[in-house]
This record gives sequence, C-alpha cells and structure tokens, in this order.
Amino acid sequence: MTDYIFKLELKVRDYECDMQGIVNNAIYQNYLEHCRHEFLLSVGIDFNRLTQEKIFLVVVRAELDYKTPLRGGDVFWIGLNLKRVSPIRFVFLQDIFHSPDQRLALSARTTGTALNEKGRPFLPPELIALLEAPGKAEAKLRY
Amino acid sequence: MTDYIFKLELKVRDYECDMQGIVNNAIYQNYLEHCRHEFLLSVGIDFNRLTQEKIFLVVVRAELDYKTPLRGGDVFWIGLNLKRVSPIRFVFLQDIFHSPDQRLALSARTTGTALNEKGRPFLPPELIALLEAPGKAEAKLRY
Amino acid sequence: MTDYIFKLELKVRDYECDMQGIVNNAIYQNYLEHCRHEFLLSVGIDFNRLTQEKIFLVVVRAELDYKTPLRGGDVFWIGLNLKRVSPIRFVFLQDIFHSPDQRLALSARTTGTALNEKGRPFLPPELIALLEAPGKAEAKLRY
Amino acid sequence: MTDYIFKLELKVRDYECDMQGIVNNAIYQNYLEHCRHEFLLSVGIDFNRLTQEKIFLVVVRAELDYKTPLRGGDVFWIGLNLKRVSPIRFVFLQDIFHSPDQRLALSARTTGTALNEKGRPFLPPELIALLEAPGKAEAKLRY
Repeated sequence: MTDYIFKLELKVRDYECDMQGIVNNAIYQNYLEHCRHEFLLSVGIDFNRLTQEKIFLVVVRAELDYKTPLRGGDVFWIGLNLKRVSPIRFVFLQDIFHSPDQRLALSARTTGTALNEKGRPFLPPELIALLEAPGKAEAKLRY
Repeated sequence: MTDYIFKLELKVRDYECDMQGIVNNAIYQNYLEHCRHEFLLSVGIDFNRLTQEKIFLVVVRAELDYKTPLRGGDVFWIGLNLKRVSPIRFVFLQDIFHSPDQRLALSARTTGTALNEKGRPFLPPELIALLEAPGKAEAKLRY
Repeated sequence: MTDYIFKLELKVRDYECDMQGIVNNAIYQNYLEHCRHEFLLSVGIDFNRLTQEKIFLVVVRAELDYKTPLRGGDVFWIGLNLKRVSPIRFVFLQDIFHSPDQRLALSARTTGTALNEKGRPFLPPELIALLEAPGKAEAKLRY
Repeated sequence: MTDYIFKLELKVRDYECDMQGIVNNAIYQNYLEHCRHEFLLSVGIDFNRLTQEKIFLVVVRAELDYKTPLRGGDVFWIGLNLKRVSPIRFVFLQDIFHSPDQRLALSARTTGTALNEKGRPFLPPELIALLEAPGKAEAKLRY
C-alpha cells in the first residue's frame, strides 16, 4: 500500500446510495473533494476564504477507477498524495479503501489549477509553497 | 437546552454549500436523516437491512425551522428525541447546533411510519419495542 | 384541484432515488426550490443576480407532507402559489402531482424572507411589487 | 462538431451550484448519468427495470475534462456516442455544450459493464443488440 501524506476516514450515509443500494458514482467526487479541502485546511489553505478572496481552485480533469462499491453504513478511508505537474497545474492522487478489510474501493487522479477573478491562472503563495514541498503533512485519521 | 437521547456531531462539507455560501436548505434533511439512521443503528435497527427485507421506514411529514445558517467548514451537532404519536406513527424531534457557541441552527420535527412490501403500515417488532421505551439510549458524540 | 399561478413539469432522474427505489425525501426540497426560482425568473426576479448583489432570499420554515412517492423516470408537475403573510415574510404553497394520473405526491408550504448583506430583512422593490400583486403570472408547463 | 446518436438538453438548477457560483464538479456526473439513462430508455433499455431484475449497469472508469463552467440558470445540451471496447465493456463518449453559443463545457468518457446478482459480468440481450448496432438512434432534444 502506498504512503499517503493525508488520510481521512468517513462513513457512508444512506442517502448517498442509489437504487442499486450502492454509493452513487457521483458521490465519490464529493468524498474526494471533501478530503482535498480537509487536507488543504490542515496545511493552512482555506478553500472558503480563497473563494471569498476571488481565488478559485478548480478541477480541470478527473479520472476515477471504480473498483468495489461502498454500501450504506460502510466505513472507509481516503489516502491522498499531491504533486505539481506544470508551473500552474497540480495533481491529487487519491485512493479510497474499505476500512474493515483495506480493500480498494476507488482510485482517482484529479488535476487542478487556481484562477483569479479574471479567470487567469494564479497560484496563491501558500499553494506555491505547498507544491514546492508537499513534504509529509501530519497524517490524520478522522471521522 | 433540551435533553436528547442521541447526539451526532458532523462537519459541513464545502460541496454542501450553495451559491449563497451557506448550506443549502435541502442538505439539512440529509443531515437529519443520517442522524436518525445512526440513532436507529445504535439501538439495533438497521435501515439498510430493513430495506432489503422490504420493510420501508418512510417520512410522512417534515417541518423545518431554519434559524442561523451553517457555512463551509462549520462543526455542528444534532440532538434527537423520539416519541410515538399514534399506533403507527412516531415523531423525531431534532435540533442542530453550531458546536463552537451552541447557537441553534435548525429545529425539525419529522413524522414517520413503516410500511411493508404492499404499502401497508407495518411496524417491525424492534421498532415497537423502541417506541414503547425510547428510554435513554447511550448518548454518543461522533464525527 | 387548486388554481396555480405557475406550473413546472420535471422528470425524476435515477440518481435522485435512494436505496428504497424512490425519490429521497430531501430531493423534493430541490424540486421545490428549482420551481420557486423558475417562477421568480418568469416574473423578472433573478435569484442568481440578487445573490451577486448580496440580497439573499432565504427560507425560514419548510413544511412538507409526503403523500405518494415518486420513482425513477416518473414525470411530475409542480403547482405554485404565493402570498404575503407579514411585512417581511411570504409563503410559497406548492403541490407536486404525478403527471400521468394527477395523483398528489407532496404538499409543501415554504416561508421565506429576504436579507441584505448585514443579515437585516430587506425586500427588494421587484419582490415587493410581486407580493402586492402576485396576480396571475402566465402559467407555463415546461420540462 | 461531432455527430451524436443522442442529445439531451437541460437547464442548470441553482442548488447544483456551489459557493464558487458554478456547477459543482460532481454534478456533471449526475447530468451524464441522466443522459445515459435517457438514451438507454429511448432504445428500450430501462435502468430501473434492470435494477429490479438484479442486472446492474455499472461504471468502471470515468474521465472528465472540465472546459468552461456552467452557472445557475444556464441551458446546456449533452451529446452522446457509444462504442463497445471489449466483449463485456462499452464506452459512452459525452460532451456538454452551452446552448446559447455551443461552447464546450465538458468532455467525458465513461466505461461501463453489466453485472448479474452474483457480481459476474452479464450483458443483457437488449444491450448486446444495442452494442452490435448502436446505429443512429432517433436524436432528440428535450428539457
């Protein structure tokens, strides 16, 4: 299993399941986004405040490989890594595991960038600092 | 502040906020449902298993009073009480509080019943037992 | 059947259904909100623009009576009426009907108000004009 | 612009937008899924009925390229194509366009398969027939 710089544990809520009785495909993007924002917050980057300051972190590409479905009540954890892939783009690598048996539920690769109010690429200083040394943020495991 | 038989603490996820920057009205019903299901699970009633057994817990009426909005990143807790209001109907009383200052965010009253596969009212024995003595389930505070 | 000043027809999307195979309770608030915003837009009140201008239309109370569930693929329509109940509060009365047989799916009563950037009640002029004569907006039936 | 075998026009609902004032990333998967299900229904394949018959159409991989964001009230259309990529896998190619100016909002590639109750790959006959001749289903443009 890969080493991750951030981990977040969550529990499936029943309303996130669809008529097949499994977590709906789109919901995984919610989980992944929430994990990215919690990670950013843990290193001092507040998505809410950036948005208010008209700096927009945006996704330009998402790739998701669905492995084994999550069901109502399942506990799972998300592992996250981050790397810079160009001067203005970065990639989050995220895997979701079933907590009880560590089985892989989903693997995702999300490419992002940051834009200013005029829609121009603009990486805020705290993000540049993070990308230069994603280092090893204090891993945490939380509900 | 009222005494509750069950408490659940959660954190707002940024995708739950709408363009006003506050949690969207409909999302509170998600929070309330998740809290009800966690409560039921804590006393041995599994919404998922009941659904598979074709016993459907359903909401017949929901009343929600919106007091002060939750915002991205806010931590809040839900307090829950339960009472039977007719042979086949029960009411969940739920309040949502901002964790930092205990300010009331929302008060809700949700009337429910249970139906069998034919759509007839049918309360499973474990639910009847619960309604006869909602007593004081072990209160828990969880993310 | 009541006379409505606005009607909107929609179709259930499969992802809106939960593990019981029916539209999740919270989703009806999405339908009702979308219908209110479409109505307001049809009389020249743009929720998006108001939000950008820091005028916030907010819900203070919602009451929903669930009558018969909607299922994946169902076509339904929403009928809307509006009345002022105090100098700063108004109520939307909305009913949802199954289109094929006009059976009632849900009845709702939503109390709203408008706030300015400081959180003070503030009804924009176009809303006051509407509330003084909700009259009979051109009824439309749309997907 | 590519030729599509199916088109669906929709309108952004305000609750689908997040605090950035644009449609949240995950919501596009909702749009894409709804379009796929509407396409399948138009050629006689009912996702709901298949689910009840314990035949599960599932997504194994999703790739989404976000081009220009959709905002509250925007009208857009989705174009869909389908091809078989292995005996048991098929790919939906879907593009989302802003209706007023035909600007590309998103391009997606969704790989799917079908499973039976035991989780074994199982393509129902109507799906095999479709994959052998996706031909040119009657294109429709609908809200």
